[in-house]
Amino acid sequence: MVITIAREFASGGREFGRRLADELQIAYYDREILQEIAKKTPYSQEYIEEVTRGRPVSLFPIHYAGTFVSVSDPNLVQATDIFQEQSNVLKELADKSDCVIIGRAADYVLRDRKPFRIFVYADLETKIKRCREREEAGKEMSERELIKMMKKIDKQRKQFYEFYTGYIWGAREHYDLMINTSGANIKSIAKAVAALIRG
Amino acid sequence: MVITIAREFASGGREFGRRLADELQIAYYDREILQEIAKKTPYSQEYIEEVTRGRPVSLFPIHYAGTFVSVSDPNLVQATDIFQEQSNVLKELADKSDCVIIGRAADYVLRDRKPFRIFVYADLETKIKRCREREEAGKEMSERELIKMMKKIDKQRKQFYEFYTGYIWGAREHYDLMINTSGANIKSIAKAVAALIRG
Repeated sequence: MVITIAREFASGGREFGRRLADELQIAYYDREILQEIAKKTPYSQEYIEEVTRGRPVSLFPIHYAGTFVSVSDPNLVQATDIFQEQSNVLKELADKSDCVIIGRAADYVLRDRKPFRIFVYADLETKIKRCREREEAGKEMSERELIKMMKKIDKQRKQFYEFYTGYIWGAREHYDLMINTSGANIKSIAKAVAALIRG
Repeated sequence: MVITIAREFASGGREFGRRLADELQIAYYDREILQEIAKKTPYSQEYIEEVTRGRPVSLFPIHYAGTFVSVSDPNLVQATDIFQEQSNVLKELADKSDCVIIGRAADYVLRDRKPFRIFVYADLETKIKRCREREEAGKEMSERELIKMMKKIDKQRKQFYEFYTGYIWGAREHYDLMINTSGANIKSIAKAVAALIRG
């Protein structure tokens, strides 16, 4: 059993995933995946994080110009390299034991294993509230900055996902369940979804 | 407690809704709504069904021409009349008792009552299989005809919903939960969702 969770930033997808893994008593993978990739490639964890967070900056011109860049573009080679290694890590983790995997286009990478694919989202109000609860004292953003930051991160996730998969991020046909956490109790949702997955 | 269910044609939304109402032991409304409207308007149940199934044919030119027709257009007046009466019926039903309501843009009409809004969908293969199971002997359609019919009905649902609500049908932000029934056991899903709603 592999459960993949894609999520809008600040929608509570990570908390939901952790609780779901707890309920089902299975492994939970999030940032651990980056560490694994760092071990297996010459790149630093920070660089990997940067690359796997969004479509590499140097790739944008491809899209806008409508032509392909040479595969010898060093940034593209490294990004593809890292995505390939990430795919290997995801497959190894999925083979090792039942697990919940957050992000990383895992629903696509592991599609042959028929994962249970969940998408978590929420309304803007809920996401702002969630961000505010986690803000460090002295580092508060204005609401405008916060919304800009959230939109940017979701855009990066969308670009990363769509670049590597050819699917549309958040389009219902690619998920088994889409959960709106606005005003909801994430713990109760995790319990119910665990019951659903147990069958 | 009001639960609204929007659904793609042949996705099992109706079966899911019935089972969910059973699990929660609350009322279930589907075609009963048409009968109620027929009682309260001069229109026949068949005519009401026709109108509430899609955006009235005479309204299409509005969209394409980008201009508004006169409100004295008799088809538009009748359709608006019926939608208004349908809205009244939905509100009366929601006031009477806890219930599950299928379709009818109920999520929008009853938005002040904060319904739990579910969208049910499935992949084409599952929907074709579901249609085949219900086909009457001697009335089998070719796969092409079947797909054409399914697409047409979903298009009508989309147009009806979007015309009256200004929302996008099936867009995640308008739902609390979106359920893909492909290869799933609808009974188990209904049980899990009932548990989730009970909290």
